[in-house]
Amino acid sequence: MRLRNVKNKKEIMDSSNYLVLDYSKYKGNWNNYFGNNKPIDLEIGMGKGKFLYEMALRNPDVNYIGIEKFDSVIAMAIKKIPEGINNLVIVRMNADYIEDAFDKEIRNIYLNFSDPWPKKRWAKRRLTSDVFLNHYDKVFKETCNIIQKTDNKELFAYSIESLSTYGYKLHDVSLDLHNDPNIIDNIETEFEEKFSKTGPIYRLIATKE
Amino acid sequence: MRLRNVKNKKEIMDSSNYLVLDYSKYKGNWNNYFGNNKPIDLEIGMGKGKFLYEMALRNPDVNYIGIEKFDSVIAMAIKKIPEGINNLVIVRMNADYIEDAFDKEIRNIYLNFSDPWPKKRWAKRRLTSDVFLNHYDKVFKETCNIIQKTDNKELFAYSIESLSTYGYKLHDVSLDLHNDPNIIDNIETEFEEKFSKTGPIYRLIATKE
Repeated sequence: MRLRNVKNKKEIMDSSNYLVLDYSKYKGNWNNYFGNNKPIDLEIGMGKGKFLYEMALRNPDVNYIGIEKFDSVIAMAIKKIPEGINNLVIVRMNADYIEDAFDKEIRNIYLNFSDPWPKKRWAKRRLTSDVFLNHYDKVFKETCNIIQKTDNKELFAYSIESLSTYGYKLHDVSLDLHNDPNIIDNIETEFEEKFSKTGPIYRLIATKE
Repeated sequence: MRLRNVKNKKEIMDSSNYLVLDYSKYKGNWNNYFGNNKPIDLEIGMGKGKFLYEMALRNPDVNYIGIEKFDSVIAMAIKKIPEGINNLVIVRMNADYIEDAFDKEIRNIYLNFSDPWPKKRWAKRRLTSDVFLNHYDKVFKETCNIIQKTDNKELFAYSIESLSTYGYKLHDVSLDLHNDPNIIDNIETEFEEKFSKTGPIYRLIATKE
């Protein structure tokens, strides 16, 4: 995502009930944080938050945690997310350190329009590289479930290769999500609304026991 | 492929050195048939044969077997294939019976623009369904290698799901083969020449030990 600076981002962040900065103290205890035993789903790189809060509103029996590293993006998300959602949290962090924040407590990981890191030498930075899949092994509760959407065909092809090589089985694959007659309940991200006009949106679900 | 009847197909087939009808007698002995120990690659549904004979001409150290069930298509292929290629054979058969023709002797299986069998109730007829993957297990020599190209996005998505679920690792995935800067030596089938103008060509390689 191209970054636009948000001038009063510190004030916006300080005043929000959604934001968690000291994430390491909740590691392994996020269900206590939420005060219930509902499953916890994670979006890595939540961007402006539309996907996360629409999921939270639609599925009150699931807890949603969005992680995001850029303060300006977090501030934009906070401004956008309706007040009073009690099954949604934003954690400011870099996905590289995801093991410091979570321990065998995540049900699903959502990767929406992640940075494609197009150059070959950047491949390990892609959120479906084996480096990250190894991190994810530590945070998933039981079955590993990754749900990815992207408009970037190189990232999608890379993900298919990396996930299948790592032992994930792929299902619910769509090579044109917005024109797929089997899809009835897709929640669009901000990015998706904008870019689905210029080419296909790809989607996969990957599962590993 | 839409079928055009070839009137003198019987005469064309009878006069060809490339065609094998009594395939079961060579089961497990195709290297003897070729008179060498070179690897044997198989194209299932070879159509008009351009891919097969261009591969055979380009790779003299590989034996190529194309299987095809329709006599009219076989006749068209025979008319098209140059004379005197000694590493190419056409076997008339239905892929359902592939185990009757081969036994642990195939290195690669090529699936080019296979019938997508679009209705859900036809899924098991697709050449990447678990029914066929089970047949293929019996004909591969050691490592199982499937190389698929298609213009049909539903078939391609299905193949990704079916192959990864069966234990194949996917690599060399392209979601737009003809515009992929990494591809340098693609041999186009007749079908591909025609249909690559209307949308992307998908390609994957699947490997299982």
